[in-house]
Amino acid sequence: MAEDAIDERLLAAARTCVLAYGVRRTSLTDVARRAHVSRPTVYRRWPDVRTLVSDVLTREWKTVLTAGGRVPVTGSGRERLVAGIIAIAEGMRDNSVFRKVRDADPEHLLPYLLDRLGTGQRMAIDLARRGIADGQADGSIRPGDPARLAHVLFLAVQALVLSAMAGHDAIGREVMREELRTLADSYLRG
Amino acid sequence: MAEDAIDERLLAAARTCVLAYGVRRTSLTDVARRAHVSRPTVYRRWPDVRTLVSDVLTREWKTVLTAGGRVPVTGSGRERLVAGIIAIAEGMRDNSVFRKVRDADPEHLLPYLLDRLGTGQRMAIDLARRGIADGQADGSIRPGDPARLAHVLFLAVQALVLSAMAGHDAIGREVMREELRTLADSYLRG
Repeated sequence: MAEDAIDERLLAAARTCVLAYGVRRTSLTDVARRAHVSRPTVYRRWPDVRTLVSDVLTREWKTVLTAGGRVPVTGSGRERLVAGIIAIAEGMRDNSVFRKVRDADPEHLLPYLLDRLGTGQRMAIDLARRGIADGQADGSIRPGDPARLAHVLFLAVQALVLSAMAGHDAIGREVMREELRTLADSYLRG
Repeated sequence: MAEDAIDERLLAAARTCVLAYGVRRTSLTDVARRAHVSRPTVYRRWPDVRTLVSDVLTREWKTVLTAGGRVPVTGSGRERLVAGIIAIAEGMRDNSVFRKVRDADPEHLLPYLLDRLGTGQRMAIDLARRGIADGQADGSIRPGDPARLAHVLFLAVQALVLSAMAGHDAIGREVMREELRTLADSYLRG
Protein backbone atom coordinates (compact mmCIF):
# COMPACT_ATOMS: atom_id res chain seq x y z
CA MET A 1 0.00 0.00 0.00
CA ALA A 2 1.33 3.47 -0.87
CA GLU A 3 2.47 5.62 2.02
CA ASP A 4 -0.23 8.21 1.53
CA ALA A 5 -2.89 5.51 1.42
CA ILE A 6 -1.76 4.39 4.88
CA ASP A 7 -1.85 7.99 6.11
CA GLU A 8 -5.33 8.30 4.72
CA ARG A 9 -6.45 5.07 6.37
CA LEU A 10 -5.04 6.20 9.71
CA LEU A 11 -6.69 9.60 9.50
CA ALA A 12 -10.02 7.94 8.70
CA ALA A 13 -9.59 5.50 11.60
CA ALA A 14 -8.70 8.34 13.97
CA ARG A 15 -11.76 10.27 12.83
CA THR A 16 -13.98 7.27 13.55
CA CYS A 17 -12.41 6.94 17.01
CA VAL A 18 -12.98 10.64 17.78
CA LEU A 19 -16.61 10.30 16.71
CA ALA A 20 -16.99 7.26 18.96
CA TYR A 21 -14.94 8.22 22.02
CA GLY A 22 -14.05 11.90 21.76
CA VAL A 23 -10.57 13.40 21.70
CA ARG A 24 -9.30 12.48 25.16
CA ARG A 25 -10.37 8.85 25.07
CA THR A 26 -8.99 8.13 21.59
CA SER A 27 -5.80 6.09 22.00
CA LEU A 28 -3.11 5.28 19.50
CA THR A 29 -3.80 1.58 20.08
CA ASP A 30 -7.48 2.05 19.13
CA VAL A 31 -6.52 3.87 15.94
CA ALA A 32 -3.88 1.31 14.92
CA ARG A 33 -6.28 -1.57 15.56
CA ARG A 34 -9.08 0.04 13.61
CA ALA A 35 -6.74 0.81 10.68
CA HIS A 36 -5.26 -2.73 10.78
CA VAL A 37 -1.70 -1.44 11.13
CA SER A 38 0.89 -1.84 13.87
CA ARG A 39 1.58 0.83 16.48
CA PRO A 40 5.10 1.47 15.08
CA THR A 41 3.49 2.17 11.68
CA VAL A 42 1.50 4.96 13.32
CA TYR A 43 4.56 6.28 15.20
CA ARG A 44 6.56 6.50 11.97
CA ARG A 45 3.94 9.00 10.74
CA TRP A 46 2.78 10.86 13.87
CA PRO A 47 4.77 11.44 17.07
CA ASP A 48 1.70 10.78 19.23
CA VAL A 49 -2.05 10.37 19.07
CA ARG A 50 -2.67 14.05 20.00
CA THR A 51 -0.87 15.20 16.83
CA LEU A 52 -2.81 12.69 14.74
CA VAL A 53 -6.13 13.85 16.22
CA SER A 54 -5.08 17.45 15.64
CA ASP A 55 -4.60 16.63 11.96
CA VAL A 56 -8.06 15.03 11.89
CA LEU A 57 -9.59 18.22 13.27
CA THR A 58 -7.66 20.43 10.82
CA ARG A 59 -8.93 18.27 7.95
CA GLU A 60 -12.45 18.66 9.27
CA TRP A 61 -12.04 22.46 9.20
CA LYS A 62 -10.74 22.17 5.62
CA THR A 63 -13.78 20.13 4.59
CA VAL A 64 -16.21 22.63 6.11
CA LEU A 65 -14.37 25.67 4.72
CA THR A 66 -14.10 24.14 1.25
CA ALA A 67 -17.79 23.21 1.17
CA GLY A 68 -18.75 26.69 2.37
CA GLY A 69 -16.47 28.37 -0.15
CA ARG A 70 -18.17 26.43 -2.92
CA VAL A 71 -21.64 27.91 -2.33
CA PRO A 72 -22.87 29.09 -5.73
CA VAL A 73 -23.50 32.79 -5.29
CA THR A 74 -23.48 35.84 -7.43
CA GLY A 75 -23.54 39.48 -6.45
CA SER A 76 -21.01 41.79 -4.88
CA GLY A 77 -17.94 40.65 -2.97
CA ARG A 78 -19.82 41.39 0.24
CA GLU A 79 -22.86 39.33 -0.76
CA ARG A 80 -20.65 36.40 -1.77
CA LEU A 81 -18.69 36.58 1.48
CA VAL A 82 -21.81 36.77 3.68
CA ALA A 83 -23.33 33.78 1.87
CA GLY A 84 -20.06 31.87 2.36
CA ILE A 85 -19.90 32.79 6.06
CA ILE A 86 -23.44 31.52 6.64
CA ALA A 87 -22.72 28.27 4.79
CA ILE A 88 -19.51 27.71 6.77
CA ALA A 89 -21.18 28.61 10.08
CA GLU A 90 -23.95 26.09 9.40
CA GLY A 91 -21.38 23.52 8.31
CA MET A 92 -19.46 23.99 11.57
CA ARG A 93 -22.59 23.88 13.70
CA ASP A 94 -23.79 20.64 12.10
CA ASN A 95 -20.41 18.92 11.80
CA SER A 96 -20.49 15.62 13.69
CA VAL A 97 -16.79 15.67 14.67
CA PHE A 98 -16.95 19.19 16.10
CA ARG A 99 -20.18 18.37 17.89
CA LYS A 100 -18.56 15.33 19.48
CA VAL A 101 -15.53 17.34 20.64
CA ARG A 102 -17.80 20.04 22.03
CA ASP A 103 -19.90 17.52 23.94
CA ALA A 104 -17.24 15.00 25.04
CA ASP A 105 -14.14 17.18 25.42
CA PRO A 106 -15.15 20.80 25.86
CA GLU A 107 -11.87 21.48 27.71
CA HIS A 108 -10.10 20.69 24.42
CA LEU A 109 -11.70 23.84 22.96
CA LEU A 110 -10.70 26.11 25.84
CA PRO A 111 -7.22 27.16 24.66
CA TYR A 112 -8.65 27.99 21.23
CA LEU A 113 -11.33 30.14 22.81
CA LEU A 114 -9.09 31.93 25.28
CA ASP A 115 -5.43 31.78 24.35
CA ARG A 116 -4.45 31.15 20.77
CA LEU A 117 -5.90 30.43 17.38
CA GLY A 118 -5.66 26.90 16.05
CA THR A 119 -4.75 26.00 12.49
CA GLY A 120 -8.39 25.67 11.42
CA GLN A 121 -9.33 29.00 12.95
CA ARG A 122 -6.44 30.68 11.14
CA MET A 123 -7.52 29.08 7.87
CA ALA A 124 -11.05 30.44 8.37
CA ILE A 125 -9.75 33.95 9.12
CA ASP A 126 -7.50 33.80 6.07
CA LEU A 127 -10.44 32.81 3.86
CA ALA A 128 -12.47 35.71 5.24
CA ARG A 129 -9.52 38.07 4.74
CA ARG A 130 -9.36 37.19 1.04
CA GLY A 131 -13.14 37.61 0.68
CA ILE A 132 -12.90 41.02 2.36
CA ALA A 133 -10.11 42.13 0.03
CA ASP A 134 -12.30 41.10 -2.95
CA GLY A 135 -15.25 43.06 -1.55
CA GLN A 136 -13.08 46.11 -0.95
CA ALA A 137 -11.84 45.90 -4.54
CA ASP A 138 -15.42 46.12 -5.90
CA GLY A 139 -16.39 48.76 -3.31
CA SER A 140 -19.01 46.61 -1.53
CA ILE A 141 -16.99 46.32 1.73
CA ARG A 142 -15.82 49.32 3.76
CA PRO A 143 -12.12 50.20 3.86
CA GLY A 144 -9.97 48.85 6.70
CA ASP A 145 -7.27 46.26 7.27
CA PRO A 146 -8.77 43.04 5.82
CA ALA A 147 -6.91 40.90 8.39
CA ARG A 148 -8.37 42.88 11.28
CA LEU A 149 -11.90 42.85 9.90
CA ALA A 150 -11.60 39.11 9.22
CA HIS A 151 -10.42 38.42 12.78
CA VAL A 152 -13.25 40.37 14.42
CA LEU A 153 -15.83 38.81 12.14
CA PHE A 154 -14.46 35.34 12.84
CA LEU A 155 -14.70 35.79 16.63
CA ALA A 156 -18.29 37.01 16.41
CA VAL A 157 -19.35 34.22 14.05
CA GLN A 158 -17.63 31.56 16.16
CA ALA A 159 -19.45 32.77 19.27
CA LEU A 160 -22.82 32.50 17.50
CA VAL A 161 -21.99 29.05 16.14
CA LEU A 162 -20.97 27.75 19.57
CA SER A 163 -24.15 29.15 21.07
CA ALA A 164 -26.25 27.56 18.32
CA MET A 165 -24.61 24.21 19.14
CA ALA A 166 -25.76 24.43 22.76
CA GLY A 167 -29.04 23.68 24.41
CA HIS A 168 -30.82 26.12 26.70
CA ASP A 169 -29.98 29.84 26.89
CA ALA A 170 -28.73 29.42 23.32
CA ILE A 171 -29.24 31.17 20.02
CA GLY A 172 -31.69 29.08 18.02
CA ARG A 173 -30.69 27.48 14.73
CA GLU A 174 -33.00 29.63 12.59
CA VAL A 175 -32.05 32.75 14.54
CA MET A 176 -28.37 32.06 13.89
CA ARG A 177 -28.76 32.28 10.13
CA GLU A 178 -30.81 35.44 10.14
CA GLU A 179 -28.77 37.35 12.72
CA LEU A 180 -25.47 36.18 11.24
CA ARG A 181 -26.55 37.66 7.93
CA THR A 182 -27.38 41.03 9.53
CA LEU A 183 -24.27 41.02 11.74
CA ALA A 184 -21.80 40.13 8.99
CA ASP A 185 -23.44 42.20 6.29
CA SER A 186 -23.78 45.36 8.40
CA TYR A 187 -20.29 45.05 9.89
CA LEU A 188 -18.73 44.69 6.43
CA ARG A 189 -20.81 47.51 4.97
CA GLY A 190 -19.91 49.73 7.97
CA MET B 1 -21.86 43.54 63.99
CA ALA B 2 -25.02 43.63 61.85
CA GLU B 3 -25.71 40.57 59.74
CA ASP B 4 -25.25 42.39 56.45
CA ALA B 5 -21.94 43.83 57.61
CA ILE B 6 -20.70 40.28 58.17
CA ASP B 7 -21.96 39.27 54.70
CA GLU B 8 -20.14 42.26 53.27
CA ARG B 9 -16.93 41.40 55.09
CA LEU B 10 -17.11 37.78 53.87
CA LEU B 11 -17.73 38.83 50.28
CA ALA B 12 -14.76 41.20 50.45
CA ALA B 13 -12.57 38.48 51.98
CA ALA B 14 -13.66 36.00 49.31
CA ARG B 15 -12.87 38.56 46.60
CA THR B 16 -9.39 39.04 48.02
CA CYS B 17 -8.87 35.26 48.08
CA VAL B 18 -10.01 34.92 44.45
CA LEU B 19 -7.60 37.68 43.43
CA ALA B 20 -4.79 35.92 45.27
CA TYR B 21 -5.47 32.24 44.54
CA GLY B 22 -8.12 32.04 41.83
CA VAL B 23 -11.50 30.32 42.08
CA ARG B 24 -10.46 26.70 42.50
CA ARG B 25 -7.86 27.29 45.20
CA THR B 26 -10.02 29.57 47.34
CA SER B 27 -11.16 27.59 50.37
CA LEU B 28 -13.83 28.39 52.92
CA THR B 29 -11.17 28.22 55.64
CA ASP B 30 -9.10 30.91 53.88
CA VAL B 31 -12.13 33.17 53.57
CA ALA B 32 -13.21 32.69 57.20
CA ARG B 33 -9.68 33.35 58.47
CA ARG B 34 -9.27 36.47 56.37
CA ALA B 35 -12.67 37.80 57.50
CA HIS B 36 -11.91 36.93 61.15
CA VAL B 37 -15.06 34.85 61.53
CA SER B 38 -15.58 31.15 62.28
CA ARG B 39 -16.32 28.57 59.60
CA PRO B 40 -19.86 27.98 60.97
CA THR B 41 -20.51 31.73 60.56
CA VAL B 42 -19.76 31.34 56.86
CA TYR B 43 -21.86 28.19 56.58
CA ARG B 44 -24.87 29.94 58.11
CA ARG B 45 -24.76 32.35 55.15
CA TRP B 46 -23.50 30.24 52.21
CA PRO B 47 -23.89 26.49 51.73
CA ASP B 48 -20.33 26.19 50.36
CA VAL B 49 -17.41 28.23 49.13
CA ARG B 50 -18.43 27.78 45.46
CA THR B 51 -21.72 29.58 46.08
CA LEU B 52 -19.92 32.35 47.94
CA VAL B 53 -17.40 32.77 45.10
CA SER B 54 -20.28 32.76 42.61
CA ASP B 55 -21.82 35.68 44.51
CA VAL B 56 -18.46 37.48 44.39
CA LEU B 57 -18.36 37.10 40.60
CA THR B 58 -21.97 38.22 40.20
CA ARG B 59 -21.19 41.35 42.26
CA GLU B 60 -18.20 42.01 40.03
CA TRP B 61 -20.48 41.88 36.98
CA LYS B 62 -22.85 44.30 38.73
CA THR B 63 -20.01 46.71 39.45
CA VAL B 64 -18.82 46.67 35.83
CA LEU B 65 -22.35 46.93 34.40
CA THR B 66 -23.28 49.78 36.74
CA ALA B 67 -20.11 51.73 35.96
CA GLY B 68 -20.64 51.19 32.22
CA GLY B 69 -24.29 52.18 32.45
CA ARG B 70 -23.25 55.46 34.11
CA VAL B 71 -21.21 56.71 31.15
CA PRO B 72 -22.39 60.26 30.51
CA VAL B 73 -23.61 60.27 26.95
CA THR B 74 -26.12 62.10 24.90
CA GLY B 75 -27.47 61.34 21.49
CA SER B 76 -29.85 58.71 20.18
CA GLY B 77 -30.71 55.49 21.99
CA ARG B 78 -28.30 53.69 19.68
CA GLU B 79 -25.44 56.07 20.39
CA ARG B 80 -26.00 55.79 24.14
CA LEU B 81 -26.13 52.00 23.97
CA VAL B 82 -22.98 51.70 21.87
CA ALA B 83 -21.09 54.01 24.26
CA GLY B 84 -22.32 51.91 27.21
CA ILE B 85 -21.31 48.64 25.49
CA ILE B 86 -17.78 49.95 24.88
CA ALA B 87 -17.46 51.15 28.49
CA ILE B 88 -18.69 47.81 29.84
CA ALA B 89 -16.47 45.81 27.46
CA GLU B 90 -13.42 47.80 28.59
CA GLY B 91 -14.48 47.40 32.22
CA MET B 92 -14.72 43.62 31.78
CA ARG B 93 -11.42 43.40 29.95
CA ASP B 94 -9.57 45.37 32.63
CA ASN B 95 -11.33 43.89 35.67
CA SER B 96 -8.76 42.27 37.96
CA VAL B 97 -11.09 39.55 39.27
CA PHE B 98 -12.16 38.43 35.79
CA ARG B 99 -8.56 38.53 34.60
CA LYS B 100 -7.53 36.32 37.52
CA VAL B 101 -10.29 33.79 36.80
CA ARG B 102 -9.39 33.77 33.12
CA ASP B 103 -5.70 33.17 33.85
CA ALA B 104 -5.92 30.87 36.88
CA ASP B 105 -9.18 28.97 36.28
CA PRO B 106 -10.09 29.15 32.60
CA GLU B 107 -12.04 25.89 32.97
CA HIS B 108 -14.40 27.79 35.29
CA LEU B 109 -15.45 29.88 32.27
CA LEU B 110 -16.09 26.92 30.00
CA PRO B 111 -19.73 26.16 30.93
CA TYR B 112 -20.59 29.85 30.50
CA LEU B 113 -19.00 29.86 27.06
CA LEU B 114 -20.50 26.61 25.84
CA ASP B 115 -23.55 25.54 27.81
CA ARG B 116 -25.52 28.10 29.73
CA LEU B 117 -25.54 31.76 30.61
CA GLY B 118 -24.50 32.75 34.12
CA THR B 119 -26.26 35.36 36.24
CA GLY B 120 -23.85 38.13 35.21
CA GLN B 121 -24.21 37.32 31.53
CA ARG B 122 -27.99 37.40 31.83
CA MET B 123 -27.80 40.77 33.61
CA ALA B 124 -25.66 42.14 30.75
CA ILE B 125 -28.09 40.86 28.12
CA ASP B 126 -31.00 42.34 30.03
CA LEU B 127 -29.28 45.72 30.20
CA ALA B 128 -28.66 45.60 26.43
CA ARG B 129 -32.26 44.53 25.84
CA ARG B 130 -33.54 47.64 27.63
CA GLY B 131 -31.14 49.88 25.71
CA ILE B 132 -32.32 48.32 22.45
CA ALA B 133 -35.97 48.92 23.34
CA ASP B 134 -35.11 52.59 24.04
CA GLY B 135 -33.32 52.90 20.71
CA GLN B 136 -36.22 51.29 18.87
CA ALA B 137 -38.59 53.76 20.54
CA ASP B 138 -36.66 56.73 19.15
CA GLY B 139 -36.14 55.02 15.77
CA SER B 140 -32.33 54.82 16.01
CA ILE B 141 -32.26 51.00 16.27
CA ARG B 142 -33.77 48.68 13.68
CA PRO B 143 -36.92 46.70 14.50
CA GLY B 144 -36.60 43.16 15.83
CA ASP B 145 -37.03 41.26 19.09
CA PRO B 146 -34.89 43.25 21.59
CA ALA B 147 -34.06 40.09 23.57
CA ARG B 148 -32.75 38.37 20.45
CA LEU B 149 -30.69 41.36 19.31
CA ALA B 150 -29.30 41.76 22.84
CA HIS B 151 -28.28 38.10 23.00
CA VAL B 152 -26.47 38.14 19.64
CA LEU B 153 -24.75 41.41 20.47
CA PHE B 154 -23.67 40.09 23.87
CA LEU B 155 -22.08 36.95 22.37
CA ALA B 156 -20.14 38.98 19.81
CA VAL B 157 -18.96 41.53 22.38
CA GLN B 158 -17.96 38.82 24.86
CA ALA B 159 -15.87 37.08 22.20
CA LEU B 160 -14.01 40.31 21.42
CA VAL B 161 -13.44 41.04 25.11
CA LEU B 162 -12.04 37.56 25.77
CA SER B 163 -9.75 37.90 22.78
CA ALA B 164 -8.56 41.33 23.96
CA MET B 165 -7.72 39.77 27.34
CA ALA B 166 -5.42 37.23 25.68
CA GLY B 167 -1.86 37.50 24.45
CA HIS B 168 -0.81 36.47 20.97
CA ASP B 169 -3.23 35.86 18.11
CA ALA B 170 -5.51 38.30 19.92
CA ILE B 171 -7.47 41.41 19.07
CA GLY B 172 -5.43 44.36 20.34
CA ARG B 173 -6.80 46.66 23.04
CA GLU B 174 -7.12 49.68 20.76
CA VAL B 175 -8.58 47.58 17.98
CA MET B 176 -11.25 46.25 20.34
CA ARG B 177 -12.69 49.68 20.99
CA GLU B 178 -12.79 50.75 17.37
CA GLU B 179 -14.16 47.49 15.93
CA LEU B 180 -16.65 47.07 18.77
CA ARG B 181 -18.04 50.47 17.91
CA THR B 182 -18.44 49.55 14.23
CA LEU B 183 -19.79 46.07 14.99
CA ALA B 184 -22.37 47.17 17.57
CA ASP B 185 -23.40 50.35 15.78
CA SER B 186 -23.83 48.73 12.37
CA TYR B 187 -25.61 45.65 13.76
CA LEU B 188 -28.08 47.82 15.66
CA ARG B 189 -28.62 50.16 12.71
CA GLY B 190 -29.09 47.14 10.42
